[in-house]
Amino acid sequence: MTPILLTGFAPFDHETMNPSWEVVRRFQHRVIDEEYPIQIAQLPCEFGTANANLVQLLQQHQPSLVICIGQAGGRPEISIERVAINVDDARIPDNAGQQPIDQTIALNGPAAYFSTLPIKAIVKHLRDQGIPANVSQSAGTYVCNHVFYGLMHYANTHPTLKRAGFIHIPYLPEQACLHPGTASMSLDTLENALWQILQTCLEQEKDIRLSTGTIC
Amino acid sequence: MTPILLTGFAPFDHETMNPSWEVVRRFQHRVIDEEYPIQIAQLPCEFGTANANLVQLLQQHQPSLVICIGQAGGRPEISIERVAINVDDARIPDNAGQQPIDQTIALNGPAAYFSTLPIKAIVKHLRDQGIPANVSQSAGTYVCNHVFYGLMHYANTHPTLKRAGFIHIPYLPEQACLHPGTASMSLDTLENALWQILQTCLEQEKDIRLSTGTIC
Amino acid sequence: MTPILLTGFAPFDHETMNPSWEVVRRFQHRVIDEEYPIQIAQLPCEFGTANANLVQLLQQHQPSLVICIGQAGGRPEISIERVAINVDDARIPDNAGQQPIDQTIALNGPAAYFSTLPIKAIVKHLRDQGIPANVSQSAGTYVCNHVFYGLMHYANTHPTLKRAGFIHIPYLPEQACLHPGTASMSLDTLENALWQILQTCLEQEKDIRLSTGTIC
Amino acid sequence: MTPILLTGFAPFDHETMNPSWEVVRRFQHRVIDEEYPIQIAQLPCEFGTANANLVQLLQQHQPSLVICIGQAGGRPEISIERVAINVDDARIPDNAGQQPIDQTIALNGPAAYFSTLPIKAIVKHLRDQGIPANVSQSAGTYVCNHVFYGLMHYANTHPTLKRAGFIHIPYLPEQACLHPGTASMSLDTLENALWQILQTCLEQEKDIRLSTGTIC
Repeated sequence: MTPILLTGFAPFDHETMNPSWEVVRRFQHRVIDEEYPIQIAQLPCEFGTANANLVQLLQQHQPSLVICIGQAGGRPEISIERVAINVDDARIPDNAGQQPIDQTIALNGPAAYFSTLPIKAIVKHLRDQGIPANVSQSAGTYVCNHVFYGLMHYANTHPTLKRAGFIHIPYLPEQACLHPGTASMSLDTLENALWQILQTCLEQEKDIRLSTGTIC
Repeated sequence: MTPILLTGFAPFDHETMNPSWEVVRRFQHRVIDEEYPIQIAQLPCEFGTANANLVQLLQQHQPSLVICIGQAGGRPEISIERVAINVDDARIPDNAGQQPIDQTIALNGPAAYFSTLPIKAIVKHLRDQGIPANVSQSAGTYVCNHVFYGLMHYANTHPTLKRAGFIHIPYLPEQACLHPGTASMSLDTLENALWQILQTCLEQEKDIRLSTGTIC
Repeated sequence: MTPILLTGFAPFDHETMNPSWEVVRRFQHRVIDEEYPIQIAQLPCEFGTANANLVQLLQQHQPSLVICIGQAGGRPEISIERVAINVDDARIPDNAGQQPIDQTIALNGPAAYFSTLPIKAIVKHLRDQGIPANVSQSAGTYVCNHVFYGLMHYANTHPTLKRAGFIHIPYLPEQACLHPGTASMSLDTLENALWQILQTCLEQEKDIRLSTGTIC
Repeated sequence: MTPILLTGFAPFDHETMNPSWEVVRRFQHRVIDEEYPIQIAQLPCEFGTANANLVQLLQQHQPSLVICIGQAGGRPEISIERVAINVDDARIPDNAGQQPIDQTIALNGPAAYFSTLPIKAIVKHLRDQGIPANVSQSAGTYVCNHVFYGLMHYANTHPTLKRAGFIHIPYLPEQACLHPGTASMSLDTLENALWQILQTCLEQEKDIRLSTGTIC
């Protein structure tokens, strides 16, 4: 039995819910193919504490696959993040009131880590299933990127964690009602998407070639 | 028994489906409150023919409420259209190859008609139900606006048609997969939305005051 | 000597300047072709008062061409407005604290008036000069549309006012600095644009055919 | 005498001009403070060749400050790029017909390099001058990011190159005319911006703290 870890975030920035946690909690107690029990956890939207909690979860569960999920308010698609960068630069304070500006996450860490998920295969598979998705070249500089970097920094020295990465998801429709003009995605679509993503991660040995790059 | 007429459009612009027809067809044979049987129809995406078909449907069914629905590819919300303008100005040819530019729809018609749906009450009710919606000040200048104007021109001289208007809806998720970066809305959310809209139209005698205007 | 009237607006919504006034004031005391003296005026960003002032200016100067100009914060191009609608629906209070919602501008006026400027010829001429421009189907529902409707309502009963219309312009660069992520246009470009627009209005007898419509 | 190197790109993607080269060519033969002669060069929009040419220029001129500039069609502001990533992923072929997908730029290079320009001080200084600017977390995955990564890879082993980075600029107005709905910036504003950027790079020893981060 090789566990899978899925994390979502607590609500932040005046929201009362976070779509990442709403979708992740639907996977509680599930087991894929009778072989991969899913562990779920909610991370606080706090620099530092979020990564401390994540490392504890990684040590406790020893998963071979980890997907951390976060809210990307305003984005219309599921964003498979390509790269985590070694900097915190908060536009607004986090849930603990911290607002780091241009601070290094890991003092001796590299400038960035690439996701080890099969990001192109995921995008292709989601689109084949009728779910809008794309590769994203930036997970921002807030707690989402902070956790993504922390996850990959851990993965870099723990080879049993074979695949790890971060996925941004849109607002839920009820959230978008409070932000006129913004895109949203239904919870059912998000749940189906996460299920398809897990399947792709487990079945796809190597990533595929698919042009999803951006000119700038 | 007072019929309600709902129309959607045929696919256009290289699409293989049109969300307006996908949602409208789900209402076939339904009756609201045992009193309002719903008639549905698909209009062709063709200047002229669409309105000729619509007038025939109006004369045949004598509905008291008509909602025409169209695809607004790229918009993230349900758009309750406020005003139809008396001009065809096609950016691309319609399904019959016609591309009118700056042509008047009704030769002696006024420059515009306002929707007679309770547009603000609809927006408020949808948002209360967690469905992103907004008032739109322009239905464009393509076949959607053409049909909207044709509908209101008919309503203007047929007082039995008490309420009539036009609603734009986003791409379905499977359509957005072919247009990376665009917003979408699930068919289940759209069906729920249309149901809520019909309820509001039947229950809301007068429209409410709700600020949804735009500065420009 | 047949006067031309150009109006801009006072700053509003926490701005300290309004690009419409900044560009209009550059045309003070100018005369085109030794025949068309330009009159300029600043209108207050206030429902009611703006139109009262405008009518007074129209009666005083008896212009044959009037172009009212307003700020469209966030739009990237010069917008030649096509249609003014008979409704005030304010998202924010005006400079006098008024916030009308869904109020008719002219009680017995039509739902809308079309601009009598050669809107397509203007767009083509501006683009030929390398200045980004487009036709817009909505001037919003705030003071800009209010003035645009008031102008066309007056023109409708005063045939000496041969051409009248409304043009929205982007933020100035210094304004966009306070709204990260928004587009802007330099004052020199705006001045050149307004000059080209005036030339087109004086030289172009009939409007041209140019596809600039929108699907929605 | 310590040279400064500025590079722009050749036109690509059906454009007949590239704003980066239009602005850079204006700095030919200039000398800042009688101490920093400016060298300029146009790089081809070709993977591989662009970096080969850049390295040759770096070896020839031994500059202490290098700013490479590229076109970001559609972006409304001047983008000071924060990070270059070690991947080529071309959405369209380059000018030589190459379209690499998910290829590493430097085989043993790190996942990313950070710019060594004072990116926050530049943004603040430009905004103080009324020029819209922001920090960008992604230079894309096309030739711009390719050159940015190549530049920083060189800088990493050549300490005499004290400051190096990449800046994306909007379309010129005449380009935006061909892409209705897109933002632009005048060449005069761009020239002023580049001048201000150079001043900031020469005068600002350490970067400042300024919150410009993004949540995602």
